[in-house]
Amino acid sequence: MPTSFLGSALRGTFFFIFGLWWSVRYPLKYLRRKTNAENQPSYGLRRVEVFEGAVKAFFALAGILVEQFVPSGPHLMLYSPKTHSWTDLTHWHYTTMYLFFLLSGIVDVVSHSPLKLPLGLDRLSLSVALFMEGLLFCFRNYGDAALDQHLHSLLAFAIFAGALCVLLEVFLRDHIILECLRTSTFLLQGSWLWQIGFVLSPPWGGPGWDQTDSSNFSFLTMCFCWHYAGALITLAANAAVSRWYVSPSKPKPLWETQRCVTSYENRASAWSRGCWKGGGRLGAQHPS
Amino acid sequence: MPTSFLGSALRGTFFFIFGLWWSVRYPLKYLRRKTNAENQPSYGLRRVEVFEGAVKAFFALAGILVEQFVPSGPHLMLYSPKTHSWTDLTHWHYTTMYLFFLLSGIVDVVSHSPLKLPLGLDRLSLSVALFMEGLLFCFRNYGDAALDQHLHSLLAFAIFAGALCVLLEVFLRDHIILECLRTSTFLLQGSWLWQIGFVLSPPWGGPGWDQTDSSNFSFLTMCFCWHYAGALITLAANAAVSRWYVSPSKPKPLWETQRCVTSYENRASAWSRGCWKGGGRLGAQHPS
Amino acid sequence: MPTSFLGSALRGTFFFIFGLWWSVRYPLKYLRRKTNAENQPSYGLRRVEVFEGAVKAFFALAGILVEQFVPSGPHLMLYSPKTHSWTDLTHWHYTTMYLFFLLSGIVDVVSHSPLKLPLGLDRLSLSVALFMEGLLFCFRNYGDAALDQHLHSLLAFAIFAGALCVLLEVFLRDHIILECLRTSTFLLQGSWLWQIGFVLSPPWGGPGWDQTDSSNFSFLTMCFCWHYAGALITLAANAAVSRWYVSPSKPKPLWETQRCVTSYENRASAWSRGCWKGGGRLGAQHPS
Amino acid sequence: MPTSFLGSALRGTFFFIFGLWWSVRYPLKYLRRKTNAENQPSYGLRRVEVFEGAVKAFFALAGILVEQFVPSGPHLMLYSPKTHSWTDLTHWHYTTMYLFFLLSGIVDVVSHSPLKLPLGLDRLSLSVALFMEGLLFCFRNYGDAALDQHLHSLLAFAIFAGALCVLLEVFLRDHIILECLRTSTFLLQGSWLWQIGFVLSPPWGGPGWDQTDSSNFSFLTMCFCWHYAGALITLAANAAVSRWYVSPSKPKPLWETQRCVTSYENRASAWSRGCWKGGGRLGAQHPS
Repeated sequence: MPTSFLGSALRGTFFFIFGLWWSVRYPLKYLRRKTNAENQPSYGLRRVEVFEGAVKAFFALAGILVEQFVPSGPHLMLYSPKTHSWTDLTHWHYTTMYLFFLLSGIVDVVSHSPLKLPLGLDRLSLSVALFMEGLLFCFRNYGDAALDQHLHSLLAFAIFAGALCVLLEVFLRDHIILECLRTSTFLLQGSWLWQIGFVLSPPWGGPGWDQTDSSNFSFLTMCFCWHYAGALITLAANAAVSRWYVSPSKPKPLWETQRCVTSYENRASAWSRGCWKGGGRLGAQHPS
Repeated sequence: MPTSFLGSALRGTFFFIFGLWWSVRYPLKYLRRKTNAENQPSYGLRRVEVFEGAVKAFFALAGILVEQFVPSGPHLMLYSPKTHSWTDLTHWHYTTMYLFFLLSGIVDVVSHSPLKLPLGLDRLSLSVALFMEGLLFCFRNYGDAALDQHLHSLLAFAIFAGALCVLLEVFLRDHIILECLRTSTFLLQGSWLWQIGFVLSPPWGGPGWDQTDSSNFSFLTMCFCWHYAGALITLAANAAVSRWYVSPSKPKPLWETQRCVTSYENRASAWSRGCWKGGGRLGAQHPS
Repeated sequence: MPTSFLGSALRGTFFFIFGLWWSVRYPLKYLRRKTNAENQPSYGLRRVEVFEGAVKAFFALAGILVEQFVPSGPHLMLYSPKTHSWTDLTHWHYTTMYLFFLLSGIVDVVSHSPLKLPLGLDRLSLSVALFMEGLLFCFRNYGDAALDQHLHSLLAFAIFAGALCVLLEVFLRDHIILECLRTSTFLLQGSWLWQIGFVLSPPWGGPGWDQTDSSNFSFLTMCFCWHYAGALITLAANAAVSRWYVSPSKPKPLWETQRCVTSYENRASAWSRGCWKGGGRLGAQHPS
Repeated sequence: MPTSFLGSALRGTFFFIFGLWWSVRYPLKYLRRKTNAENQPSYGLRRVEVFEGAVKAFFALAGILVEQFVPSGPHLMLYSPKTHSWTDLTHWHYTTMYLFFLLSGIVDVVSHSPLKLPLGLDRLSLSVALFMEGLLFCFRNYGDAALDQHLHSLLAFAIFAGALCVLLEVFLRDHIILECLRTSTFLLQGSWLWQIGFVLSPPWGGPGWDQTDSSNFSFLTMCFCWHYAGALITLAANAAVSRWYVSPSKPKPLWETQRCVTSYENRASAWSRGCWKGGGRLGAQHPS
C-alpha cells in the first residue's frame, strides 16, 4: 500500500486549514465571551458552525469521489472478478475515513437546524470520525515497511489525542483549553501528513527514505515533537494576531474594547450571513 | 474452538434487538423530557426498565441452558473422567458470559423494586457483564487462526467501548449522548457477530475465509467501520421515525407537541402497565 | 520465583477479610445515610476508619516481619557477599508491597487525627499501594512459567481495577457504587490469591498444574470470571443480611426504621469506642 | 546512545528541586487557604508562580545551550555532510525535551501577566512537556540494552503519571491531592534519573551493571518502588516541617494561627516582591 505524496498532502491541507481556522475562531470566541458576557445572543457563532460543517462535508464528499474515480481508483468496485480477489483496498480505506467525516459534517449542519438535536452530538460525531481514522491507520497492512509503520503510529498518537479531546468536549463544551488542544492536534495532524508524504514518496521523485536506518526513526520521532511545537507556536501566533486585530491598543477603557468586539461581531456576521438563513435555537441539554 | 454460525447469529440477534429497542426508546425519552419537564412522574419509564431487565435475564438463562444441553454440549460436566482432561470449554465460556448478563438482568429488575438499591447499580452490572465478555473474548485460545483473532479483537473494541460508556453512565445517568453511544455499540456488536458467523463458518457450508490472505484483514477492518456507519444510520433513522410518529407535523405550536407526547406517554404506559405492578420509588442518590 | 501455598493463602485472606468487612460496612453506611440524613454526627464512622487503618498497618507490618525472618527469608540482607549476587528477591518484593500498605494504614490513622490533613489522602495512599502491588506483579520474572504469568496477569486486572476505583474515590468520596466496586475487587483478589496457591503449589503436595496445556489457560480465565461472580454474590448476600439484621421487618413507618438504625449506631459505636479516643474533626476540603 | 552520569544527574536535580519546592509550597498554600479563606488577595502566590515559570524557562534554556555546545555536542548541526548521515541525535533529543519545558516556562510567565490568558493553560503546557518527554524516552533506540530499556520504561511510568496528573489539574485546579501527587512524581523522576545514572554509567567509572542478569531487573523494579516510598516520605516530612515552622505550637486559638500565617504571607511576599512587579489580575474562567 504505497502512499502518494499528493494524497497525503491534500489530506494534510484539509486538517491544517481546519486547525488554522480554529486557531483564529476559538481565541476570538473566548475573548468575546469574556468581554460581553451574556448580553448578546451569539447568532453569528451558530452560522459559523453550520458553515464549518458544510465545508467539512463538502471536502469529505470530494475526497470520496476523488479516491473512487481517479484513474487508478476502484470505481466503486470492491471485488475484482478477473483476479478473484479484492481490488486495491487503499482507496477504499480512505473512502471509509472520509465517510465518517462526511457524517460528522452532516451532523454539524443538522444539529444547528430547528430540529431539537441534543447538544454534544456534533462533538461526538467528530470524535467517532477521528477514532475510526485512527483505527484504520492502526490496522493498515504495512508489511515490512517499518518506517512507514513508525510514521503512522506517530500519526495515530495525534489522531487519538484529538479524538479523546473531542470526546471530552461532549461533556465540557466550550472549554477554551480543550478547544486549543483540539486545534493543536489538527495542526499537528495536518503538518505530519505533509511530512509523511515527503518521507515516503518525495514529490521530486526518488525512493523515499531508508526504511532500515535506525537513525531515521530517532530523527522522525524528534521531528514529530518539533511539528507539535510548531503547531503550538502557530496557534499562539494566530491567537495573538487575531486578538491584536480585534483590539489594537490594549490599555483602553472597557467600553472601547466592547465596541471593538461588537464591530468584529458585525463584520463576522456579515460575512457568514450569506450561508445559512434560519437562525434556529439549539435546544440545550444541561450535562450534570 | 470453532465458531458455529447459528450461535454467533443468535448472540448477534440478542444484541441487535436491544440496540434497536434502545434506538427507539432513548430518543423518545429525550424528547419527552425536553417537552414536559418535571411535570409528570415517569412510572412508565420504570416499568419499561424492569421489563428490559426481565427480557435480558430470560435470554441469558435460555442461552445458558442451550449452551449446556445441546447435543454437543457439556451437560454441566466440566471435567471428563474418561479422557482425564477438561471437556470442550467453548460452551462453558459462553455460559460464563451469559451468567453475567443474567446477573445484570436480575439487578435491573431488583433495582426498580421497592428495595432501596442505590441508583446506578443497574448500569454497573451491565458494565461488568460487558467487561467480562470482552475479557473472555480477549483470552480465548485462537491457536493459529489469525483472522479469527483479528475479527474478535475488532469485536472486543465494540465491547469495551460499550463497557466504558455504560461505566460512565453510572456517574452521568440519563445523558442522551451516552445512551446513543451505548445503543450504537450494541448495534455494532450485534451486526459484527453476524459478520463473524458469515466469515468463519458460512451458513451455506464451506471452509470460511482464507486465514492467511492479508487483504482479508484489510477488508474486514474496513467492513467493521461500515458496520459502525450502518449502526449510526440505523440509530438516526429509528430516532427520526419514532419522533415523526410521535409528532407527525413539525411546525406546530408548543402545546400541540406537548399534548401529542402526552398521548404517546399514555399509549406507552398502557402497553407497559401489564408487566409490573408495584411502582416503587427508587431511592435516588445524588452523585456529586 | 516459586509461590508458596501458605503465603498466597495468607495474602488472599487479608484481602478477603477486608472485602467481607466492607461488604457489611458500606451497605449499612448507605442505609444510615439515606434514613437519617444530616441529623447525627458520624463519630462512629470515623473511629471505624481509624480502626481499619490500624488493622491494615498491623497486618502489613506483620507481613514484612514474617517475609524477612522466616527461615528461608533474607533477614534484611539484600546482597549476599558470599555469592556476589542478590539474595532471593521474592521476599523483598513482598516486603515492598506490604510497605505501601503499611504507609496506607498509617495515612488512614493520621488523616482522622486532629491534624488537618486534606480529605482524600487516605484513598490516594490506598490507590498508590494497589498500583505498586500491580506494578510489582507485572514486572516479576516468571521465566518460562506461562501459566504462572497468565494467573498473575489476571490478578493484575483485579488489582488495577481496584486501584483505579480507589483513585476515582479521591474525587467522588462516599459514592456507594464505587465502594461496592472496590469491595468486589478486594473479594476477587482475595479468592484469586487462594486459587493461585492451589494451582501453582497445591497444599497436598505435587507439582502444580501443567504449564503447557492450553486448556488450563482457558479454564482459569473462565474460573476468574466465576470468582468475580462469587465475589458479587457474596457482596449482595452480605449487604442483604446486614440490612435484614438492622431492619428486620421491612414495611415499617419511617420513625421505626430510624430508631432501629440509631440503635445499630450505638451498638457499633460501643464496639468501636475502645480503640481510639480523640474524635478529631477532619478538615473537609470541598472538591469541585 | 550512552547515558552520561553528569547529564542524568543534572536532569534529576532539576526535577528533584522542583519537587522539593512544591512539597513546601503546596502544603503551606493549603493551610493558608484553610485558615484565612477568601479574606486576603493572594498576590504573593501569583508572583511565586511567575518566578517558578522563569526558573523553569531559564533551566530549560541553559539545558538546551549545554546540550548543543558541549564539546561532543552537535553545535546546532543536524546533518553531517561529511558522513552523509545524521549527527548524534541524543543531544538533539534532550534539546527537544528542554524546548517543551522552555515553552511551559514561558506560558507560566505570560499567563500571569495582564494579558487575559485562559486559566489552566500553564498546567496544559506542563502536561504537554511531560507527555513529549515520555514519548521521546519511549521511542528512543535502546538497541540490545534491555536493562537500559527497563530503567527508562519505569521512568516513563513516573513521567506519564505526572503528565496525567497535571492534565487533570487543568480541570480540577488547586486540588491539594493532585498537587501532592504531582509533587511526588517529580521527586520520583528526579531520584530515578540519579539512579539511572548510577546504574548505566557509574561516576567512579566502570562498565555499568550487567544488562543480562535477570535479578538486576527484579531488584531495579523493587528499587523504583522504594524511590517512590522515599518520595512520599520526603513530601510528608517537608509538609510537616513547613507546617511546624508556620505554626510552631499546635494547640493554639484560631486567631493566633491566623496571625502566624499572615506573618508568613508577609515574609513570603517580601521575598518574592523583587522578581515581578505588575501584579496583574488573571482572568478566571470557570470550568463547569
